[in-house]
Amino acid sequence: MARRSDVLDTIVNLAKRRGLVYPSSEIYGGLRASWDYGPLGVELKNNVKRQWWKSMVQGRDDIVGLDSCVILAREVWEASGHVQAFVDPLTECQSCHKRFRADHLEESYEDKHGRPPANGLADISCPNCGVKGSFTEPKMFNGLLKTYLGPVEDESGLAFLRPETAQGIFINYLNVQQSARRKVPFGIGQIGKSFRNEITPGNFIFRTREFEQMEMEFFVKPGSDEEWHQYWIDERMQWYVDLGISKENLRLFEHPQEKLSHYSKRTVDVEYKFDFAGSEWGELEGIANRTDYDLATHSKASGADLSFFDQESGERFTPYVIEPAAGVDRCTLTFMMDAYAEDEAPNAKGKLEKRTVMRLDRRLAPVKVAVLPLSRNSDLSPKARDLAARLRRNWNVDFDDAGAIGRRYRRQDEIGTPFCVTVDFDTLEDDAVTVRERDTMSQERIAIGQVEAFLAAQLVGC
Amino acid sequence: MARRSDVLDTIVNLAKRRGLVYPSSEIYGGLRASWDYGPLGVELKNNVKRQWWKSMVQGRDDIVGLDSCVILAREVWEASGHVQAFVDPLTECQSCHKRFRADHLEESYEDKHGRPPANGLADISCPNCGVKGSFTEPKMFNGLLKTYLGPVEDESGLAFLRPETAQGIFINYLNVQQSARRKVPFGIGQIGKSFRNEITPGNFIFRTREFEQMEMEFFVKPGSDEEWHQYWIDERMQWYVDLGISKENLRLFEHPQEKLSHYSKRTVDVEYKFDFAGSEWGELEGIANRTDYDLATHSKASGADLSFFDQESGERFTPYVIEPAAGVDRCTLTFMMDAYAEDEAPNAKGKLEKRTVMRLDRRLAPVKVAVLPLSRNSDLSPKARDLAARLRRNWNVDFDDAGAIGRRYRRQDEIGTPFCVTVDFDTLEDDAVTVRERDTMSQERIAIGQVEAFLAAQLVGC
Repeated sequence: MARRSDVLDTIVNLAKRRGLVYPSSEIYGGLRASWDYGPLGVELKNNVKRQWWKSMVQGRDDIVGLDSCVILAREVWEASGHVQAFVDPLTECQSCHKRFRADHLEESYEDKHGRPPANGLADISCPNCGVKGSFTEPKMFNGLLKTYLGPVEDESGLAFLRPETAQGIFINYLNVQQSARRKVPFGIGQIGKSFRNEITPGNFIFRTREFEQMEMEFFVKPGSDEEWHQYWIDERMQWYVDLGISKENLRLFEHPQEKLSHYSKRTVDVEYKFDFAGSEWGELEGIANRTDYDLATHSKASGADLSFFDQESGERFTPYVIEPAAGVDRCTLTFMMDAYAEDEAPNAKGKLEKRTVMRLDRRLAPVKVAVLPLSRNSDLSPKARDLAARLRRNWNVDFDDAGAIGRRYRRQDEIGTPFCVTVDFDTLEDDAVTVRERDTMSQERIAIGQVEAFLAAQLVGC
Repeated sequence: MARRSDVLDTIVNLAKRRGLVYPSSEIYGGLRASWDYGPLGVELKNNVKRQWWKSMVQGRDDIVGLDSCVILAREVWEASGHVQAFVDPLTECQSCHKRFRADHLEESYEDKHGRPPANGLADISCPNCGVKGSFTEPKMFNGLLKTYLGPVEDESGLAFLRPETAQGIFINYLNVQQSARRKVPFGIGQIGKSFRNEITPGNFIFRTREFEQMEMEFFVKPGSDEEWHQYWIDERMQWYVDLGISKENLRLFEHPQEKLSHYSKRTVDVEYKFDFAGSEWGELEGIANRTDYDLATHSKASGADLSFFDQESGERFTPYVIEPAAGVDRCTLTFMMDAYAEDEAPNAKGKLEKRTVMRLDRRLAPVKVAVLPLSRNSDLSPKARDLAARLRRNWNVDFDDAGAIGRRYRRQDEIGTPFCVTVDFDTLEDDAVTVRERDTMSQERIAIGQVEAFLAAQLVGC
């Protein structure tokens, strides 16, 4: 099996060719680090979001959902600290004029040399042009994207695109708690787009200026926070494993105490072994104990009372918050990379040939079933179209009648379709079809009237 | 039944109280015309989107999906005409300093008087303060929201938030057509957020600066466009009817030839009788014949060949586009308003009392099933929780053990929950529960092991 960094190139190509992910605005020469999801990509991504929502919101009795605005009142970002503190140190190589994050340069140096650079940036060579010590003094650069509401482009209409969905949850804490009649502990989950003016976007859909998040804020009684934090670390790790990610490609990364964000008591990341150039492991999800920082800050800034009165203990407290925050696009990339495999399959003459197969969990596969009439423009066509139409009521279905059947299997394998249903000339006699499973390539003859029930049993939870 | 404009106030109150929709950033005094969806609202809205996707993408063999960026290359909006032409005439009342769209003021005048104002704005009284003829000369105002990418806030990083999802489809036409191996006619559907710097947002979630769209671009052979246009007008009207909107509250509005957008050959709106102050009917969805305007424009501006070679006829042409474009938030509002009803239900003593019921189509209801143990802290609790946990694998489920059973039914009726399952003391004997249907209020005793199958049959397509 190839190294995963080679897999990334393969995935980028496959993604464009098969309609998973295209470079955005491509006919205009593209927009740096922007990607659009094609017909298969949007299904895959929606399935990732659906599984998260089922696992984190609908499937639980202690979590409810929310969908707040991208553009919130400016005061929200002033209170949260983003206007002041959401900054990264930006430096530019004076030789090649490429920009970098100074902290990233120093971290890479330390990873490589086992110690931090003694003279800071002066010791570091430019990763782009190789010239050493030519970096400008770092300037702090705010990651909030600005816009202006209303007719005049001035301070009065200044607004920000949210850099995280979390603050939309905190400012709605009281409305949700009261209208949904919830008692602590309980959580609020949200999926939605966020925007950051990233200095160094890159690695396909791993880091982009516009991205989607799946965040959940779990409100707990102070004192129970460490236990709940561990609970959510375990739960979230298990979610990836349950959806098929290889355990050896996952790890937990404990943020060193001295590098914690200002709001965090402890943060643990779920990391995936992306094998990107320059960094083996990348963050999939951060799970932070945010203490009562957010509710206390917004309470102070807004004047709203965001404390909770616990009737059982008779105590009033500001809840602590445990936050598992995952990236939709990163998850989607991870599921594609981890599912990508090459093995062998017999060709028409029974000889083994290389096959590419995306071993996606069935719940994530963008197409659940492909209906393949063995011959085009024959009596098989109406029967196959009829079957496809029936299956389409339940699942995303592909219909393909172009080319040799072996090639059509390969096309479906490559995008991870769990089942192919072949309608052949025997079907006209026995009213049965052949159902082929992606991973084992085993085939089973099933009465056409039973196909729906057969697939329903195989596709539980999709 | 109350007038629907009163219903709007009722819905706004109910929406906040029950967690459907809250005023956004409320603890900071709010942000004008911004709304956040609460736990029930996000489920309702997701169900609306899901039904559209099923009907317009997954359920059809001639349409595929897409999810393109909010921020596209600037050239896209230059080519589409938005940078130049996406403008509205803004005027301000010099007496009360409220801002209006001049065209809206003139249209209202014409609706009321049956003729346009002879002297333009000079004839019109301010709808806010009543002073006549105090409007400023209208200035053209661009509705694109700007932002700046990269470290320097200047022309080089200028970008726009998309005001419609459609352009993301046009610029991906070629990638989709090729990677999904499609032949004209075929369509591309997309759901996503758009942003417009509206001068006059208002009427709850009807018009907001940030909103969600469900757009589909259907590419057809020139000459077949008028027939396809009519097909989509009929289809889209039927979609609302199928999901329960009363026919008498829906109508089609044909845009007068002289008021058509520059790209349109014919546009027909699906309108709903919102009964807003000042306007009885409001646009739910526009269905436009955009001709080859978009593909031709982008082809010219980008240099990409966006024509299609039709192998059957041997012809090459630039496809015409039929566009049904609906607003998610408006749809959600419409489904709530149209479903809102008041009738009577017997109270504990058998006396009829007023009941509020949201007669939502079951596929749209935010909660599908409520599980109600008759008594709290009894042997019923574990049985009821166990049942709720099982049902939660398939549907969004509420669990409520607080207060008299009649009150709990009312709470579920008000949010449109189609089924309540009551676990009572007989359950401990007969292992059966009572299932109550929302609209008829009829009750049925069902073995606890059969509840899932019973509900599955009732909740097909949810």
